[in-house]
Amino acid sequence: GYTRLRRSVEGLDGAPEWPALRVLVPELAGRRVVDLGCGFGWFCRWARHAGAAQVLGLDVSENMLARARATDPDAAVTYRRADLERLDLPAASFDVAYSSLALHYIERLDELLVQVRRALVPGGRLVASVEHPIFTAPSAPGWTRDETGREVWPVDRYLDEGPRTTNWLAEGVVKQHRTIGTYARLLLRAGFTLSHLEEWGPTAQQIAEHPEYAIERERPAFLLFAADC
Amino acid sequence: GYTRLRRSVEGLDGAPEWPALRVLVPELAGRRVVDLGCGFGWFCRWARHAGAAQVLGLDVSENMLARARATDPDAAVTYRRADLERLDLPAASFDVAYSSLALHYIERLDELLVQVRRALVPGGRLVASVEHPIFTAPSAPGWTRDETGREVWPVDRYLDEGPRTTNWLAEGVVKQHRTIGTYARLLLRAGFTLSHLEEWGPTAQQIAEHPEYAIERERPAFLLFAADC
Repeated sequence: GYTRLRRSVEGLDGAPEWPALRVLVPELAGRRVVDLGCGFGWFCRWARHAGAAQVLGLDVSENMLARARATDPDAAVTYRRADLERLDLPAASFDVAYSSLALHYIERLDELLVQVRRALVPGGRLVASVEHPIFTAPSAPGWTRDETGREVWPVDRYLDEGPRTTNWLAEGVVKQHRTIGTYARLLLRAGFTLSHLEEWGPTAQQIAEHPEYAIERERPAFLLFAADC
Repeated sequence: GYTRLRRSVEGLDGAPEWPALRVLVPELAGRRVVDLGCGFGWFCRWARHAGAAQVLGLDVSENMLARARATDPDAAVTYRRADLERLDLPAASFDVAYSSLALHYIERLDELLVQVRRALVPGGRLVASVEHPIFTAPSAPGWTRDETGREVWPVDRYLDEGPRTTNWLAEGVVKQHRTIGTYARLLLRAGFTLSHLEEWGPTAQQIAEHPEYAIERERPAFLLFAADC
């Protein structure tokens, strides 16, 4: 929970995995960028500051888009409502696609990745984070103590892919649990090359600054990846 | 445990992940094959039956090699003692490298993968299985029951890579726990392309034949991968 709440208020700087994700983002100067699940537009604004020529932020939530549009309006940043289950982008129209913690909500991820691959130019890159399957798998996700008193994360249903309903922050949120193997297979099948795969945990420095992050090293909450065209 | 003991007696047919690993093995007719951690030589013999021109089986255990040599001697199959921590193979001398449940014992896996990459010809492939990091991570690996009575696999220390000492089957066996992200990074850094990643679980048919396998779907025991040159 700790690592999840700060990001709504502080944006990228409140997302502890952002430094690890940022190094996967290629040089953006003069590039066309699409953000799949842009939320309040934190990354879209960052991309413009990093020199992107055009940024398209897509999200299913009109509320989030309204707030994104109201923050630092910029003619080179467009926010548009889009259902990522039925994405339709012009072919070869972006250099970089980015997605933070959105793809694990998508049921038809195979089709979305084909669309994203098609929308990227040769040499283009997709950079994304999703909730790690260790995090999404369990019937009852949460820390418990084993008989020696250590905090452990009980895993079950890992190989049972499909919907998981959780009641954290909001009631009845449905996530799509997928294995890392499936993410890799869908990326490769869509025509991407897999360039980076990372099971994120906080660094020693982050733990020194936020001791409550330490437990996040016991099991990864996020999976980060980069895939190239 | 169930999935581990049968293989010693029955060989490949006693290894439930073998059907999934086999489909990753390329056509072997006329090919030169090296098996890293060949044990009793089950795969080496299978590779010859599949038409391989030459097979080299490497293992650190003279006992296993002696038994391998005594089974169906074949001039095209060579068994040799080798420490995979210090492997030295001639460059571009193999078409296929194979390794079943051996690489998670190797401390200097980065160097081994560079050696294997170098020993393969362009277009060559490495096919391997290792114990899955969910399996190797925990301080106390084993099933427990949660408060609802469900069997769960308590994970901790997942992001703490390094040695794990277990006392199953033999005392004080040391495994090297690595994340999937690290396996991917070491393969890419050695110059491989990542072609397949799979977190193995038994199929419905395997569970029908061996009901005791069912629990293996709760968390993956094995990670399978294919990497191309």
